[in-house]
Amino acid sequence: MDYRIEKDTMGEIKVPADKLWGAQTQRSLQNFKISGERMPIEVVYAMAIVKKASAFANRKLGVLDEEKAAVIGEAVDEILSGKWDDEFPLVVWQTGSGTQTNMNVNEVVARRANQILESRGSATRVHPNDDVNRSQSSNDTFPAAMHIAGVIAVEDRLLPALDLLNGTLRAKAEKFNDLVKIGRTHLQDATPITFGQEISGWYSMLDNTRAMLVQSVDTMRELALGGTAVGTGLNAHPDYAVAVAEEVTALTGKTFVTARNKFHSLTSHDQMVYTHGAIKALAANLMKIANDVRWLASGPRCGIGEITIPENEPGSSIMPGKVNPTQSEAMTMAVCQVIGNDAAIGMAASQGNFELNVFKPVILYNFIQSVALMADSMISFNDNCAVGIEPNEAVIKRNLDQSLMLVTALNPHIGYENAAAIAKNAHKKGLTLKESAIASGLLTSEQFDEWVRPENMIGKR
Amino acid sequence: MDYRIEKDTMGEIKVPADKLWGAQTQRSLQNFKISGERMPIEVVYAMAIVKKASAFANRKLGVLDEEKAAVIGEAVDEILSGKWDDEFPLVVWQTGSGTQTNMNVNEVVARRANQILESRGSATRVHPNDDVNRSQSSNDTFPAAMHIAGVIAVEDRLLPALDLLNGTLRAKAEKFNDLVKIGRTHLQDATPITFGQEISGWYSMLDNTRAMLVQSVDTMRELALGGTAVGTGLNAHPDYAVAVAEEVTALTGKTFVTARNKFHSLTSHDQMVYTHGAIKALAANLMKIANDVRWLASGPRCGIGEITIPENEPGSSIMPGKVNPTQSEAMTMAVCQVIGNDAAIGMAASQGNFELNVFKPVILYNFIQSVALMADSMISFNDNCAVGIEPNEAVIKRNLDQSLMLVTALNPHIGYENAAAIAKNAHKKGLTLKESAIASGLLTSEQFDEWVRPENMIGKR
Amino acid sequence: MDYRIEKDTMGEIKVPADKLWGAQTQRSLQNFKISGERMPIEVVYAMAIVKKASAFANRKLGVLDEEKAAVIGEAVDEILSGKWDDEFPLVVWQTGSGTQTNMNVNEVVARRANQILESRGSATRVHPNDDVNRSQSSNDTFPAAMHIAGVIAVEDRLLPALDLLNGTLRAKAEKFNDLVKIGRTHLQDATPITFGQEISGWYSMLDNTRAMLVQSVDTMRELALGGTAVGTGLNAHPDYAVAVAEEVTALTGKTFVTARNKFHSLTSHDQMVYTHGAIKALAANLMKIANDVRWLASGPRCGIGEITIPENEPGSSIMPGKVNPTQSEAMTMAVCQVIGNDAAIGMAASQGNFELNVFKPVILYNFIQSVALMADSMISFNDNCAVGIEPNEAVIKRNLDQSLMLVTALNPHIGYENAAAIAKNAHKKGLTLKESAIASGLLTSEQFDEWVRPENMIGKR
Amino acid sequence: MDYRIEKDTMGEIKVPADKLWGAQTQRSLQNFKISGERMPIEVVYAMAIVKKASAFANRKLGVLDEEKAAVIGEAVDEILSGKWDDEFPLVVWQTGSGTQTNMNVNEVVARRANQILESRGSATRVHPNDDVNRSQSSNDTFPAAMHIAGVIAVEDRLLPALDLLNGTLRAKAEKFNDLVKIGRTHLQDATPITFGQEISGWYSMLDNTRAMLVQSVDTMRELALGGTAVGTGLNAHPDYAVAVAEEVTALTGKTFVTARNKFHSLTSHDQMVYTHGAIKALAANLMKIANDVRWLASGPRCGIGEITIPENEPGSSIMPGKVNPTQSEAMTMAVCQVIGNDAAIGMAASQGNFELNVFKPVILYNFIQSVALMADSMISFNDNCAVGIEPNEAVIKRNLDQSLMLVTALNPHIGYENAAAIAKNAHKKGLTLKESAIASGLLTSEQFDEWVRPENMIGKR
Repeated sequence: MDYRIEKDTMGEIKVPADKLWGAQTQRSLQNFKISGERMPIEVVYAMAIVKKASAFANRKLGVLDEEKAAVIGEAVDEILSGKWDDEFPLVVWQTGSGTQTNMNVNEVVARRANQILESRGSATRVHPNDDVNRSQSSNDTFPAAMHIAGVIAVEDRLLPALDLLNGTLRAKAEKFNDLVKIGRTHLQDATPITFGQEISGWYSMLDNTRAMLVQSVDTMRELALGGTAVGTGLNAHPDYAVAVAEEVTALTGKTFVTARNKFHSLTSHDQMVYTHGAIKALAANLMKIANDVRWLASGPRCGIGEITIPENEPGSSIMPGKVNPTQSEAMTMAVCQVIGNDAAIGMAASQGNFELNVFKPVILYNFIQSVALMADSMISFNDNCAVGIEPNEAVIKRNLDQSLMLVTALNPHIGYENAAAIAKNAHKKGLTLKESAIASGLLTSEQFDEWVRPENMIGKR
Repeated sequence: MDYRIEKDTMGEIKVPADKLWGAQTQRSLQNFKISGERMPIEVVYAMAIVKKASAFANRKLGVLDEEKAAVIGEAVDEILSGKWDDEFPLVVWQTGSGTQTNMNVNEVVARRANQILESRGSATRVHPNDDVNRSQSSNDTFPAAMHIAGVIAVEDRLLPALDLLNGTLRAKAEKFNDLVKIGRTHLQDATPITFGQEISGWYSMLDNTRAMLVQSVDTMRELALGGTAVGTGLNAHPDYAVAVAEEVTALTGKTFVTARNKFHSLTSHDQMVYTHGAIKALAANLMKIANDVRWLASGPRCGIGEITIPENEPGSSIMPGKVNPTQSEAMTMAVCQVIGNDAAIGMAASQGNFELNVFKPVILYNFIQSVALMADSMISFNDNCAVGIEPNEAVIKRNLDQSLMLVTALNPHIGYENAAAIAKNAHKKGLTLKESAIASGLLTSEQFDEWVRPENMIGKR
Repeated sequence: MDYRIEKDTMGEIKVPADKLWGAQTQRSLQNFKISGERMPIEVVYAMAIVKKASAFANRKLGVLDEEKAAVIGEAVDEILSGKWDDEFPLVVWQTGSGTQTNMNVNEVVARRANQILESRGSATRVHPNDDVNRSQSSNDTFPAAMHIAGVIAVEDRLLPALDLLNGTLRAKAEKFNDLVKIGRTHLQDATPITFGQEISGWYSMLDNTRAMLVQSVDTMRELALGGTAVGTGLNAHPDYAVAVAEEVTALTGKTFVTARNKFHSLTSHDQMVYTHGAIKALAANLMKIANDVRWLASGPRCGIGEITIPENEPGSSIMPGKVNPTQSEAMTMAVCQVIGNDAAIGMAASQGNFELNVFKPVILYNFIQSVALMADSMISFNDNCAVGIEPNEAVIKRNLDQSLMLVTALNPHIGYENAAAIAKNAHKKGLTLKESAIASGLLTSEQFDEWVRPENMIGKR
Repeated sequence: MDYRIEKDTMGEIKVPADKLWGAQTQRSLQNFKISGERMPIEVVYAMAIVKKASAFANRKLGVLDEEKAAVIGEAVDEILSGKWDDEFPLVVWQTGSGTQTNMNVNEVVARRANQILESRGSATRVHPNDDVNRSQSSNDTFPAAMHIAGVIAVEDRLLPALDLLNGTLRAKAEKFNDLVKIGRTHLQDATPITFGQEISGWYSMLDNTRAMLVQSVDTMRELALGGTAVGTGLNAHPDYAVAVAEEVTALTGKTFVTARNKFHSLTSHDQMVYTHGAIKALAANLMKIANDVRWLASGPRCGIGEITIPENEPGSSIMPGKVNPTQSEAMTMAVCQVIGNDAAIGMAASQGNFELNVFKPVILYNFIQSVALMADSMISFNDNCAVGIEPNEAVIKRNLDQSLMLVTALNPHIGYENAAAIAKNAHKKGLTLKESAIASGLLTSEQFDEWVRPENMIGKR
């Protein structure tokens, strides 16, 4: 393998000749051979945005010259195109401030910028620290990149996936709005509802957590940039903080503002704990939806069997008709992971000391994984399961007809005590409610049919 | 012990003669001898409010007569006065819908109402189910009571405690706004900040999570009332849902509204997961604050020792001057509990099936405990620690003076390389920065004093 | 209220005249008004055992005189009788070393001992620190008490409860060993099993976690006693550590040994994390058992309905035959709490610094609560549910008969493809397997009855 | 891209021409586009071992012919060599029984085996289901593979890493066994210990959790194989279960046995919850060790500064002498992840129903990640930090000398009250203990030096 020699204040180090990264990235690679989880590309991109926004803000403030700012922007644009993803090989388990990923981006941007400059015959050279990292410190760029990556992930990945599933469920609810079925509480037969009402409980879960996500992610629009090493802004232009937030806003098309208190920004990740709380609320809701779907589809003969779901894979090589609810299974496993991630984030966020919390990468990693898991499992569940949910009307009708709780409808006509006696007798002897009612001599078959109408027990809709 | 005989559909049961509760409470007592955690009194009170609000709403709608509604209100008022706390002996670990606590309240209200009626010579009698529970089901009263208790706990207990500590910290920040001290990142010496800036990071943590609490608790203003058994509102007057929310608002002085989707209200507790996420964010922040305080107060001789905190208990019987940071210890233990509670709530909230989530009591229990822990530990920490935090100016000055990172201030005058050499030499030989600077021959003692001014390194404030 | 004046190195303080506790307990009461969770009485008793064992060990080593040792033992015996429970009012949220509870026990033992001495006319007086706490520090007594309380809780409370439920399940498994029913995987109909086999899966869960509990609790037999303040044993007789462990063994009837490394004992609670991991494994298993029971009992008409469980409380006032699985609900809520407690314990155990972990009370509190929850919910579940589980043989037979997967038995006779065609046809047309088989013309009714025998599909037992 | 057409019972599907996998793998790829976490290669290898062991066991039992068994073994050996890692592209978030990964392995083994057979001119062909999966079901192979992968991970990856760090710490403890330093409890100065004693607390943490790992991983030696679809062993030879466990033992060189109860094996993952509890105990201990190291190394001037650790990366470009404790940071972040993983595993393990738990992949994924994180971070911490820990003897001596708690040594000579007065005076006036002692007139400089000897306060070692 070909190497080139790079130098930093620690001395010389070999770097693969074909790589853009420099000495500090290389040292991190060698010093942190821990598991395999790479720093999520989302935060690398967000960091690249920080670099471009900083270059442009510094240009505007007159502390970076035009040519350097422009070429930094070009290098960043290439990174954002996905062209250089392999240049960011560092793992999550590195320095807790994300310094090494900040330096990785600085080094790649600088080297790529210099290649561009060289190809144009320019004598200008961009320095990773003095130019790309100008007015910045890992301590403010990394939390800023966490927020940028987090907001983009929630808004551009999680919410659209939620909306997709929500739309499917709303359409199903409307379609089956008049399909009366048995309700169940404590897993026990209860009074009737419509299938549309049941599904409305599901999409309301999505509605509610959508509002929570929108509300909580707003707290992540604050950027630490301008705080530099300890929050005081040492070495940054006094107007940099506001200027760079404007540039980030312009580059992302999403509103970001400078944080009101930079000491907070470096030490607290309350905004990510809070927003992940909304993601956990969504996860808890999805667990319930996915469970309802697989229980309603259980059977086909010996379960509840009130709905059918798409058959996507071969069932058992032995048993035809066996459709495993695999999309529910994938989703509920993802929910367990999100609930675990929430515990990791909460603990990590609590461990700051003095002017810095050094558990930033683990917080970001879990946050981004949770978004990916929830977004993708909602899309997968939608496309491969929810769109194909169909009621098994025969089973729904049979269940409704044989349910004893319809007896409630007789109360006004023959009184609670008589009604109760009819139901108990039916339960004991295995009769239908109608059979037991007629056997009681208290009402006729015609009266039963007139009085016992599930469709009158489902409220205004 | 004296007993009276009560009856329900299961048959007869002995109830202590001097108790107001009835058969169903007694059965629960006997069937759920599990650990000792009582259903929090907060939810009992909230349930009592539901009963009064329901009675008044039903009176307005013409489905409960004036005398019954009035006496239900009187019995509830007595409960809310704290007079009957012993009448609610049930534990958290009961039916997962909270049915038994609903019945406990129904039974106590009814029996106490009947005692009042009897004492007045009235022949009217109030029935626990038909009157007190009219238009209701455990399935909608319990989640409504959870929300009422939760909103009251956050607004009347948690936020005032937070504000108390916040006020103390703001005053301290202002008082020490000009006291320059060493900053620390990665636990390592960094560039200076003022003690006021450091404390501003703490109160900003409280500011931020306060806003999250205010925002998230708003989602809990929705009441399930009107949904009854499965969400369809069977057996409730069509206008009951809106009317009872108005009554709850009037009784509590806090805004509550009827839930937009009752199927959601019975099956999802996303609002409590979300709001507890804000509580967890607060907890994570408090961990950091309490840790900073005890580390800054560590010593007195062999730690950081930059602040002193009140001495509240005798230190060791051996070592004078040993002040253990016990308020920090209590607070950080409470934080661990809240993070555990968050895991319990998230899992419980995910376990709903069909028309009901039957993990309601465990969710409520953890939520209320978290509020109590965070509120009380903030008050205790405030009163017994934060108000007495004082800087140890001698130590702060010594640390600042001997810190090597002040060398940064020389960069513009003698260049980074020379400055670095001075610092390295000081570190290696154990010199002060000034000693090393003068020894370098690059600057004079007077120049050093003029150029190296920590107070110029702390940014605009 | 009557007070007496007590003094310590902080000065004078009023203590209620009728209480045995002294100044330090009183200060803690006043300084830690945090939530209401009292330090579990289990650890108070364990601490009392430490005091008696220390007095006896010190007597044996000649560093405490006979009369004092004897009267300390008498006072401790009174505490262990439950007579003085009200004398231990401190909460969990106090100093993280449990110092205040150690002092609470020291103060109560000393004062009560002195009352006894006084009543006998003895002039001897016992001092809380010099005598009761002799050779000890909170830093070693509290972790020792945690282990003593923990071992007793697991062995005397948790295991017997587990054995009770295990016995019931084994009896049921034997009773229903030949009752063939449908198996279910992915909630879908699968090949048959016997009900006894299904239940054997449940009791094997108890068997397995029992072995884990027995194995892991052994690690908690190590006592920190002899380490005193920092682990070096300063101020304790060199033979105290071994001697006191022998005394604790004698007093409790359970083996305890002196810890191999006292520095570990003060700073690590790995043994409690590990043992609580076994409790969590049990909890996870109980969740599955309780869920199986309520799902199998779901219905009565529109669920799975293969078993019936005891009716302990009135079902709905409307619907006869509705038996809510409330014991399953209580148990599964308790499981959620244990899983939350596990998160709290793990985090707390990770937060030690230097020579002490100051999160001891919160670890102990959660451990004891988990034991109580699991033990009591197993007893309650056993007595009020498991003992009354009965198969609903008609439903079991109907499910088995109509299941399509019995087609597997035809494979050897008519080939997989033909068998599959029969099953698919049955599924599509809603036929029984037998109807579809006969319709295929490939076999006769008699052949079907001979070949399709679920009882031959359940393996050796 | 080139495709070939594969068929299964769902119909035709295009598979990349150059891939060994078949239709079911391809369907899973298309139906589960969820996040990017691949099924850990460790479980793929373990599944491959299951296939070879099954083939050999079946050969021995006469139900698979020699040629097929041999070539299955050859194909598996190739997989285990790492040659075909790209052939296992499926993600964790698939069917909860791991069926698709079982089929992925079946398909790759069969196709590769057939390539080998073809190259030899043999007419024999191996079928993925009938031959490679013979006597098996996903429901028993996947939990068996989880156990095999888990035991190998703990024994071959985690324990050696633990031993490495343990060895380093033991050597350090021995080396610094006589270096007396201040002890600290509650972060406050306490009585002295030796640095060797302090480090012995760390390695005892590793000793203790090592024993827990060894003990708990033994529970994972039980294999589900032989249970097939529901635990009854339908379609497997009655002697297969025992035979295949022997083959797995032979192939891995590690003891495995057939599970005592196969119904348990398919539904419970208590063994993994329990063993992960030991991993969590290790994680909690590592958090404490890593924290101690970074706090002891804090400074260099304004922290505790009693040790130095290796400088692996450039510190700040501004501040020479700043060594960030990045290895501690990586390790403590990994600990947070493990604690999160533990929550995910516990919840997932609790969610079984009837004859199957369908949360297997998420359990395995978290277990393997935790092992990787703990093992690799211990190695990294060892190599890049622990080996280079050196005491800063000057600081240690200064701290010890100026500590006030040495006053304890005067108690026997001048009494506690006089000693306390000396210490209080020193604390108040900022004197050394010796200065204050001499100023008291109660002892001479020579007496102080004779009586106050920290080396006599550290106990027997």
